[in-house]
Amino acid sequence: MTYTPTAETPEPVEDSGATVDVAGLGEVLLGRWAEIRQAARDLAGRPEIHRIDGLPMVEHRERVVGQLKYLVDAGAVHRAFPRRLGGEDNHGGNIAGFEELVTADPSLQIKAGVQWGLFGAAVLHLGTTEHHNRWLPDIMSLKTPGAFAMTETGHGSDVASIATTATYEPETQEFVIHTPFRAAWKDYLGNAANDGLAAVVFAHLITHGVDHGVHAFYVPLRDEQRNFLPGIGGEDDGYKGGLNGIDNGRLHFDQVRIPRTNLLNRYGDVAEDGTYSSPIASPGRRFFTMLGTLVQGRVSLDGAAVAASKVALAIAVRYATERRQFNASSDTAEEVLLDYQRHQRRLLPRLATTYAASFAHEQLLQKFDDVFSGAHDTDEDRQDLETLAAALKSLSTWHALDTLQECREATGGAGFLAENRFAALRADLDIYATFEGDNTVLLQLVAKRLLADYANEFRHADFGVMARWVAHQAADVTLHRTGLRQVAQTFADSGSERKSANYLKDPETQRQLLTDRVSTMVAGIGGALRNATRLPQKEAAALFNEHQHELIEAARAHAELLQWEAFTAALTQIDDHGTRQVLTWLRDLFGLSLVEKNLGWYLMYGRLSAQRARILGTYINRLLSRLRPHARDLVDAFGYGPEHLRAKIASGAEQERQDEAMAYARSRRASGEAPMDEKVLIARRKATEKLSQKRQKLEAKG
Amino acid sequence: MTYTPTAETPEPVEDSGATVDVAGLGEVLLGRWAEIRQAARDLAGRPEIHRIDGLPMVEHRERVVGQLKYLVDAGAVHRAFPRRLGGEDNHGGNIAGFEELVTADPSLQIKAGVQWGLFGAAVLHLGTTEHHNRWLPDIMSLKTPGAFAMTETGHGSDVASIATTATYEPETQEFVIHTPFRAAWKDYLGNAANDGLAAVVFAHLITHGVDHGVHAFYVPLRDEQRNFLPGIGGEDDGYKGGLNGIDNGRLHFDQVRIPRTNLLNRYGDVAEDGTYSSPIASPGRRFFTMLGTLVQGRVSLDGAAVAASKVALAIAVRYATERRQFNASSDTAEEVLLDYQRHQRRLLPRLATTYAASFAHEQLLQKFDDVFSGAHDTDEDRQDLETLAAALKSLSTWHALDTLQECREATGGAGFLAENRFAALRADLDIYATFEGDNTVLLQLVAKRLLADYANEFRHADFGVMARWVAHQAADVTLHRTGLRQVAQTFADSGSERKSANYLKDPETQRQLLTDRVSTMVAGIGGALRNATRLPQKEAAALFNEHQHELIEAARAHAELLQWEAFTAALTQIDDHGTRQVLTWLRDLFGLSLVEKNLGWYLMYGRLSAQRARILGTYINRLLSRLRPHARDLVDAFGYGPEHLRAKIASGAEQERQDEAMAYARSRRASGEAPMDEKVLIARRKATEKLSQKRQKLEAKG
Repeated sequence: MTYTPTAETPEPVEDSGATVDVAGLGEVLLGRWAEIRQAARDLAGRPEIHRIDGLPMVEHRERVVGQLKYLVDAGAVHRAFPRRLGGEDNHGGNIAGFEELVTADPSLQIKAGVQWGLFGAAVLHLGTTEHHNRWLPDIMSLKTPGAFAMTETGHGSDVASIATTATYEPETQEFVIHTPFRAAWKDYLGNAANDGLAAVVFAHLITHGVDHGVHAFYVPLRDEQRNFLPGIGGEDDGYKGGLNGIDNGRLHFDQVRIPRTNLLNRYGDVAEDGTYSSPIASPGRRFFTMLGTLVQGRVSLDGAAVAASKVALAIAVRYATERRQFNASSDTAEEVLLDYQRHQRRLLPRLATTYAASFAHEQLLQKFDDVFSGAHDTDEDRQDLETLAAALKSLSTWHALDTLQECREATGGAGFLAENRFAALRADLDIYATFEGDNTVLLQLVAKRLLADYANEFRHADFGVMARWVAHQAADVTLHRTGLRQVAQTFADSGSERKSANYLKDPETQRQLLTDRVSTMVAGIGGALRNATRLPQKEAAALFNEHQHELIEAARAHAELLQWEAFTAALTQIDDHGTRQVLTWLRDLFGLSLVEKNLGWYLMYGRLSAQRARILGTYINRLLSRLRPHARDLVDAFGYGPEHLRAKIASGAEQERQDEAMAYARSRRASGEAPMDEKVLIARRKATEKLSQKRQKLEAKG
Repeated sequence: MTYTPTAETPEPVEDSGATVDVAGLGEVLLGRWAEIRQAARDLAGRPEIHRIDGLPMVEHRERVVGQLKYLVDAGAVHRAFPRRLGGEDNHGGNIAGFEELVTADPSLQIKAGVQWGLFGAAVLHLGTTEHHNRWLPDIMSLKTPGAFAMTETGHGSDVASIATTATYEPETQEFVIHTPFRAAWKDYLGNAANDGLAAVVFAHLITHGVDHGVHAFYVPLRDEQRNFLPGIGGEDDGYKGGLNGIDNGRLHFDQVRIPRTNLLNRYGDVAEDGTYSSPIASPGRRFFTMLGTLVQGRVSLDGAAVAASKVALAIAVRYATERRQFNASSDTAEEVLLDYQRHQRRLLPRLATTYAASFAHEQLLQKFDDVFSGAHDTDEDRQDLETLAAALKSLSTWHALDTLQECREATGGAGFLAENRFAALRADLDIYATFEGDNTVLLQLVAKRLLADYANEFRHADFGVMARWVAHQAADVTLHRTGLRQVAQTFADSGSERKSANYLKDPETQRQLLTDRVSTMVAGIGGALRNATRLPQKEAAALFNEHQHELIEAARAHAELLQWEAFTAALTQIDDHGTRQVLTWLRDLFGLSLVEKNLGWYLMYGRLSAQRARILGTYINRLLSRLRPHARDLVDAFGYGPEHLRAKIASGAEQERQDEAMAYARSRRASGEAPMDEKVLIARRKATEKLSQKRQKLEAKG
């Protein structure tokens, strides 16, 4: 969106004198697990675990295997496991430490995630004590590298529809794991192509002719020489768009037998005679509970995406404050990139979003720890956690890709070189948008939760953020149809830009606008779908599909609101006046950029008058000018050092080059050795000609 | 943007019965140089020149060098050179053929572009006959691989500010090429790290103490053993985000002497005594004329970006018509991806944009050929060509990145595998957004041209697309301030959705909306800047900077309008009724998606009533449903075969897997061997319990 200027001139940008307490802000950003996070950063700064650009796939894979052992030795990856097995029972801290590894090498991070966060966590959360004792020590020590065999070639985010079966035979007391056709091959699994000696395999549990839905089984894959065991086969997924330090691959099972006790039986068990039992009666709820124990993948990707965005902005903002290009305002000095309005527009709103995502992630992490530590572990807590993780992971992983790309482009050709980090980080993080749940599918889950909450509205009075539903939805429709609300705003501001700006920067305005959009969208869709349950299946699905796009946009709006709320809540943690001032501008930039992005909606539904809408762009530009002097402090507060950034353009080299070039130009001017510009010569010649013509005229007259 | 549904139900989607004549449409898409384009595709389909994923950098570079020789032998790269030297003097055809190479390997394409399109073209267009005879044969045959040494570490898109100097010495009749400081090193040059034996070096020409601005010099770099000649040094740029088959590097010159006659002297010469002369008196115009001869780089990137977008969509659309996921509408069959509204929203508007960009590129290519063949080669033609190339290259290169990414995500984990092409194509094309002119800088150039045209408006009556300026700009402001225009639309439609839809699909409506936005934006900025020339330099620059974001958005809107006009013009070339019907829907989708993207603007300035705006989303969804059955035909018409797509998911393998899975399920159901779903079991048990309770009650009563 763009805005043609209005008649009134905006007030001049004042240097408010506010300064940022970089160290203090850094502490706030580190969050509840500051110490672990800091220790993980120290580790991530070590060259032994850094990515080497251009390493061929095979060598990169080998290097990462070695690095995993390094992590074990450094005691960096066992925090979530039980104390009695050498862990710390610290779920939040574990994730906080894990997500910082992304700055070293995302391949290392994700391979560690596969081993301890998926394979190990499945044994921990879906298995019972006997399983823990039997398998966790070797998983923790990396003696048993393993795969997490959930996804199939034919089924990604729709886990319930996987086709691998585990059929119980009472005669042998064994499960028979079987892949019935090619689409049911397990696919994209880290540790599957080479290293995995075992796997947690997800398959439909069948006993006594009944399919009890998806359960998890511990299945040995390879012998010590890494040859597949009988009945097991696979393929290497080969070269990928990124994360080439991980040996992703495919697995298939031809009537592979495992003991009955290899069923990870916390949520469903089979007795020797084949009788099925479960503490959760409903198959649907059982399935979601089992999958819910694996939410930490999404939580950690959210955090890793935020960390990568911080690294990218720290590099690009530093470069933008040193690099100069084009000289519009002076004949001798070129402009610093970040003084260009467009460059501010490219980097600063993304910086604001990164702060919002960071604060929102900290809330998510605390919620996660509350549930997994057992402090607050009701069904509703687990549902809230699921929804929050789905919402935030989608937004932050897309945001990281967008930010890495914008930073790459904002640093030009230099940004394309591996030595400046963006390209590889972006390539590695690409898959974050679709693994551990495809973002589009996740947002649809969020939307369904919103619709369910909406349906419950009349039964329960409060449900978190959703509490602000407008009770007078009907009256509202009338208002926006007639445009009466717009007219009211126009009269209220009576033509004053100042009043409009005051309106926009009021946090209550921002909250109301953002909340109103979510609630109105959900109510609209809810209304349209209210009869769906009474329709035949096919028609109901078609009706739902007609609103799928809106649904997903509503979920996105909801997630953005959650980020805005988290940012606003974080402001109260900041005592330093100057820091709070600057962060408040940054929060305003985040909130108002969201309004700007969806301006059509706000105008269409009469939530903003055209007059206030026209101020919005101008006011955002003013916020950019205010934030410009603090940009460097705001990225410094992320706390990443040169050992994390590892980008030549963020090393001070650019400033040196600029200084050298300027010193050279100064000395040339001083020495008088500089050649004269042809343009100056032409101008002088013209002046001389004019003078001589004048003289001739005068002489002619005289 | 998203839209809550309105009360009225949209009319049911009719199957219009229209069919697409795939072959006929394919012919139209091939354009004026169909034969050359087809020959280049045949070549690009050969395995010898295909990219091999995961090849280490050194081997990839070697492979590409070999492939360049293959292109020479195939007679594929000499079309633009003079007939008397073995070329064809065919400028448009040369580019048409060149841009098709992107499907084989973008590294190969760009390395060829460096050799013949930049290095060779600089000798051709900036040199004179003697230079052509002396150097072109070895450049054409690849005996002399060469670099195009324009960009410096310290100056990318601001070529006028490069700091390398070429100072003439009358005593020796030599130019002394010199790099005064680190920022002036030539950087990012293909052929510089390894292969270049010579370079065209851009440097400020200084003679008799006067700097005549940037000129081009032919400078030998290395001896036959590829050792640098005295005074020359360099560095390898190393591993990059993509295009790793090209040896990009840096060069610096320490008082390197070359003969006077190595100045490429078409636009500026130095006599033996050091006297400077040029056919173009103005240094500014001379500079832009020299740079203008190199516009073909931008033209060809536009075409290559379009080709890559086509390949991506051909893969993703085919997969989306075969792959199934989730089963909302049936218990036995899952949905095909492209039947999901959101999936249509993700792929089909990008398909529409690709068609628009393709037709616009063909216009650009014809304009380019008109200028370079001399058919229409006035100063104004060259300026128009520059502006058109800058506008279209920016949009299409960004579009290609966006499309490749969306296709990657829309195909999930499969899209991340190298075997499905997206990742590497995206990585390679990343740099297209900032090389041959940074897109942001290019759009700013376009905007400046628009502003200049605006300033000329009162002097000249017609200037192409810009002719539709609203004469009653003042009256207009009153209209949108009061909202009177909105009210008028509301009355005109009198609440009918049908009337609103008819309004939106009228091409005159689309043209008027798109044109109006450009003209209003430019007029607004023009008005705000009208006094800038009277301000001191610093203040004028600050005022300009305050409107930089709007300026660039205005340029983008202009470029989008050009694409829309090209699409609309192309419709007249299509005789087949069904094809024209389908393409008209696609054009409508393109135009209305642009309106939707900027809906805030249209509402804020009263160009659309809230009522019509609310129909827009619904109408776009209806277009998506109409286009859905034709999606496969529309990508097939691009004419790329399996030898160009080379993606496993576009090979039919997915359909095979789906068929196999469905056949398995059918046979299981038929055999009665399928296990019973636990949910069904529970439902039956409940039904039985209910029945027995009823019976008990009855018995109790009885």
